[in-house]
Amino acid sequence: MSANPLHPLDEAIALTPTAPGRYTANPHPAYANAVGPFGGITAAQLLNAALLHPQRLGEPVAQTVHFAAPINDEVMQIDANPLRTNRSTQHWLIQAFQQGQLVAMCTAVFAVRRETWSAVDAVFPGGQPAPETLARLNWSKQPRFTHCYDLRYINGMVSLDQAMIDGPQEQPNAQSSLWVRDQPPRTLDFPSLASLCDVFFPRVFIRRQRWTPIGTVTMTSYFHVDSQMLTQIGSDYVLGCARAQVYHNGYSDQSAELWSADGTLLATTHQMVYFKD
Amino acid sequence: MSANPLHPLDEAIALTPTAPGRYTANPHPAYANAVGPFGGITAAQLLNAALLHPQRLGEPVAQTVHFAAPINDEVMQIDANPLRTNRSTQHWLIQAFQQGQLVAMCTAVFAVRRETWSAVDAVFPGGQPAPETLARLNWSKQPRFTHCYDLRYINGMVSLDQAMIDGPQEQPNAQSSLWVRDQPPRTLDFPSLASLCDVFFPRVFIRRQRWTPIGTVTMTSYFHVDSQMLTQIGSDYVLGCARAQVYHNGYSDQSAELWSADGTLLATTHQMVYFKD
Repeated sequence: MSANPLHPLDEAIALTPTAPGRYTANPHPAYANAVGPFGGITAAQLLNAALLHPQRLGEPVAQTVHFAAPINDEVMQIDANPLRTNRSTQHWLIQAFQQGQLVAMCTAVFAVRRETWSAVDAVFPGGQPAPETLARLNWSKQPRFTHCYDLRYINGMVSLDQAMIDGPQEQPNAQSSLWVRDQPPRTLDFPSLASLCDVFFPRVFIRRQRWTPIGTVTMTSYFHVDSQMLTQIGSDYVLGCARAQVYHNGYSDQSAELWSADGTLLATTHQMVYFKD
Repeated sequence: MSANPLHPLDEAIALTPTAPGRYTANPHPAYANAVGPFGGITAAQLLNAALLHPQRLGEPVAQTVHFAAPINDEVMQIDANPLRTNRSTQHWLIQAFQQGQLVAMCTAVFAVRRETWSAVDAVFPGGQPAPETLARLNWSKQPRFTHCYDLRYINGMVSLDQAMIDGPQEQPNAQSSLWVRDQPPRTLDFPSLASLCDVFFPRVFIRRQRWTPIGTVTMTSYFHVDSQMLTQIGSDYVLGCARAQVYHNGYSDQSAELWSADGTLLATTHQMVYFKD
């Protein structure tokens, strides 16, 4: 019996094997969103099904999650299948079912990386105020899962209290920057990084400064580091920068980057989000 | 017998139904790349398997293609399955096999869109020289499929002839802009748009001004228009803008946008690319 209780994220991504590549899992109440679980935790659960698989090759390079239907509080069955394994790459299909119906799925590429020429074209947004100088997000109406993160917005947050006073003030864009880490702090790994990729408030909220019904339909994350590098970063804050490019007839995109505090690009991530009106 | 022969792209994406949701297809020699077919044509074939499916709902909003293994010249079997159909969205899994082995797969979201508040945050790069004022790409060593496109680079092309004289000159980034359309010209639709999402030369070629073995492992495309809008654009040139954010130990990302000549954002697209050294 461990003296340290499990971190809520470890509880949330815990899977019970029932057959090779087959697991059961339960949505964790701490990661609840307005409707169903936080999408990032579903991404982490699905990725974990591949990470724990005995036939896994290497580490995650890419993950695409489809949020196929609302997830309720009941048990999920998760099936993870390495559909094609090559010499250094592996392509996965991972599906989650509730009451026999598909509720989420993901594909993933895992790979054994070799050391090569490397470079970064993206520009690290240096000169940000340190996380310790910023207030932690604290707003009575924030969804439950946000309390599992220490969110310190630098800019581009929705000011709903202000919007309620003045009426919504549409912004010229939906760019946001924030420092974020798991709460309580937890050493980074691929499940937590996959989950952080979905931690941004929907761009349409930021752009329009108003709440509307939304739901991510698909999210793709590319991972640019290995697990050793994530361990070295430990539980330090990560800088997240997000924006949208277009909102058109019910669907909007989002692109974002996650950087370590010293300027390593950890992940780039993209999603399409349904919005109602 | 038709007086007009089929466009090569229509030949390339033609599918022969053999059972509900099951088709056979052949790689088309006109769309050959250095090894196997051009990835964009595989994306178009897989998308077409959903477009032709009797249970299809709405139009494509997102597509993620996995290039799981080299595709040879033999027949492919394509299985398209709408895994979850909701009121206005549908999640697809489409798999392609050769000799019983998975060679490519895609997931897709289709949706019935409603008219809503819409906006574009991305900035259309106006002031580009008109396509008619630019030379068409014409280089003896270009892969066969590139002759199926009228490619007019504005900037950010690889200058291999120069590199052979001076030695490779590494560039500060891998930003490219080009005008492109199908050759011969063909009215845009979702298969051709899906295919154009992969038309950019690998970013690592541009960045390093040298040829290295590469292969896209996964590509995600988000579509921001409907088929009626694509028909209106017709066979006009499309502006493509691409860049990379990071190259790290064998894998590099790419993000790109495709714009109509009058500034409508048609698609945003992202991929992870393996490179050898």
